[in-house]
Amino acid sequence: MKITAVIMAGGRGERFWPKSRSDHPKQFLSLTQDGETMIQKTVKRLLPLVDKDDVYIVTNSAYTPLVRQQLPDIPENNILAEPCARNTAPCIAYAAAVINKKYDDAVMLVLPSDHLIKYEDIYISTLKKAVKSAKDGKNLVTIGITPTYPETGYGYINFGEEKGDVFEVKKFVEKPDLKTAKSYLSSGKYLWNSGMFVWKISSVMKNFSLFMPDIYDGALRIGESFGTDNFSSVLESEFEKFRSESIDFGIMEKASDIYTIPGSFGWDDVGSWLAVERINETDEFKNFAEGDVMLYDTKRTTICGGKRLVAAVGTRDIIIVDTDDVLLVCSKNHTQDVKQIITQLKEKNRNNLV
Amino acid sequence: MKITAVIMAGGRGERFWPKSRSDHPKQFLSLTQDGETMIQKTVKRLLPLVDKDDVYIVTNSAYTPLVRQQLPDIPENNILAEPCARNTAPCIAYAAAVINKKYDDAVMLVLPSDHLIKYEDIYISTLKKAVKSAKDGKNLVTIGITPTYPETGYGYINFGEEKGDVFEVKKFVEKPDLKTAKSYLSSGKYLWNSGMFVWKISSVMKNFSLFMPDIYDGALRIGESFGTDNFSSVLESEFEKFRSESIDFGIMEKASDIYTIPGSFGWDDVGSWLAVERINETDEFKNFAEGDVMLYDTKRTTICGGKRLVAAVGTRDIIIVDTDDVLLVCSKNHTQDVKQIITQLKEKNRNNLV
Repeated sequence: MKITAVIMAGGRGERFWPKSRSDHPKQFLSLTQDGETMIQKTVKRLLPLVDKDDVYIVTNSAYTPLVRQQLPDIPENNILAEPCARNTAPCIAYAAAVINKKYDDAVMLVLPSDHLIKYEDIYISTLKKAVKSAKDGKNLVTIGITPTYPETGYGYINFGEEKGDVFEVKKFVEKPDLKTAKSYLSSGKYLWNSGMFVWKISSVMKNFSLFMPDIYDGALRIGESFGTDNFSSVLESEFEKFRSESIDFGIMEKASDIYTIPGSFGWDDVGSWLAVERINETDEFKNFAEGDVMLYDTKRTTICGGKRLVAAVGTRDIIIVDTDDVLLVCSKNHTQDVKQIITQLKEKNRNNLV
Repeated sequence: MKITAVIMAGGRGERFWPKSRSDHPKQFLSLTQDGETMIQKTVKRLLPLVDKDDVYIVTNSAYTPLVRQQLPDIPENNILAEPCARNTAPCIAYAAAVINKKYDDAVMLVLPSDHLIKYEDIYISTLKKAVKSAKDGKNLVTIGITPTYPETGYGYINFGEEKGDVFEVKKFVEKPDLKTAKSYLSSGKYLWNSGMFVWKISSVMKNFSLFMPDIYDGALRIGESFGTDNFSSVLESEFEKFRSESIDFGIMEKASDIYTIPGSFGWDDVGSWLAVERINETDEFKNFAEGDVMLYDTKRTTICGGKRLVAAVGTRDIIIVDTDDVLLVCSKNHTQDVKQIITQLKEKNRNNLV
């Protein structure tokens, strides 16, 4: 059975503004010093397991030129453009229906396009176990991340008994408060929900038909039209009608017979500017500096420079991001609030900077 | 007797880098929101007391185009270019000798070009008292500033008995430590040394002849050649030979019969980027923002924007200065260290940014 991968690349990545913009979001940025973008890394690390002709990218139609440019080896027909944003459930149904038309059945990996993995060999061997379980008939498999600290910004997976390579999922839980997160960690029975899934096309389609029949029907119509002259108009009319829903809420929290594999492969969701110091090398004072930068008595300062000299004097715990038209200076404990500037810009109709 | 003013405008103002540059120092910048530069304000506030034809600007020869441009009403002959930097004593001797050639005797105000005065009417009335005392035969008069806090970055003037409008100076003292500065304040007998002086040309020349005879002789030769074809070559050869010396050390600390007038006219030496929040209006969270700026949850942040949007998120107690080719982010308790970046730039031969 073929192994296919669906990479979800429709996100906007507002938390990496001003480097990420609505027309050039995070997954198309390089946040590491090797120059590779997030989506390029995502595809590259999969290639030991998945043939490039079986890698599908689902993205907003506005981003298809970026995908083609950054991933020239991926067949053009594998770039699936969403006419509008409808969260992960319609995205996955669309891709599943398209793949379903090509192969009788196949294994489908569903992966975010904007995460980093430090230990790629462990990652591949973890995925291989998940693929084997899916092939062996496990309904839905999700890759959980063994938590290393009580993060309150992620959902968690509560798992139960071990079944071969996988564990039974007891339940998915929403972002906890700190006390709850600590209890999750000490129990040893919780994983972070990373948004990575492995299943057979036939399995996930069955779950769509059970829990999201409207989306199942629409996706089938999209799949049937794929490769025909009607495709664009069918896609547009069906996709518009989809409600916006996550796969977690739409299926994972409702289905039974779900399994998880704990992953310990140096996963990072690169969720805010704070990630830059985690995923790159810092100096002895925990500064990270990229570009034309001069420092004097700075500590724990992250600088992503642009074309000009950035001089930091005596700074502590701040992030400086310089671009041609915007400069951001952000306290490290306010990285989630970068979105507030985007809100202000939208209110003032300054969409060219968003 | 004519009242003349000599404005010393040869300084480099490194602490206002990157807005101030070696080819465009602080006195030629506007740091207030009215758009007037420091030197323009310095001249304008004098005009109730001094005729514009009697205002002299002593500056580095590299800055004479800037002086002409910013002060088009000052006669060109009143712009006295120093061939090299030799501190305040040679600067004042040069100006005194030139004025001495024009007038038989005159009162001479000596003033920095890069300070701000909040209450200009009080300033003028203070200067008038000093002028009267100088005319009445007081040897040397200096304007002291009534201290409002125990600043350790200024020299102090210890004064004694009141003599009419002025007080006898007992001694000039160097920058004190905090404990000493506090004792100065509580004694009520100390003023800040502001570098503003008032005397007759004849008085200051006599003091030069007594305490700095070499500079006196050279200045006389410069004054004699003023207005002749030889002037440039005489100025150059004499000025080169001068040692670098401050008027404070060269004369004020040695002469007797010195007086001071306590000034309380909202003086600010605009000594570092910290001054910007003092001399401008701030918002309710003590932020100062100039230019295209967006704030979210920022406090006590000073932003001097440039051509781009500056977004500050969650910042506290920092200064952000944006220019076309350099961005500075500086902690408020490191404003004196901006010079260290200039040092680094010079070491790396990046003089275009200095």
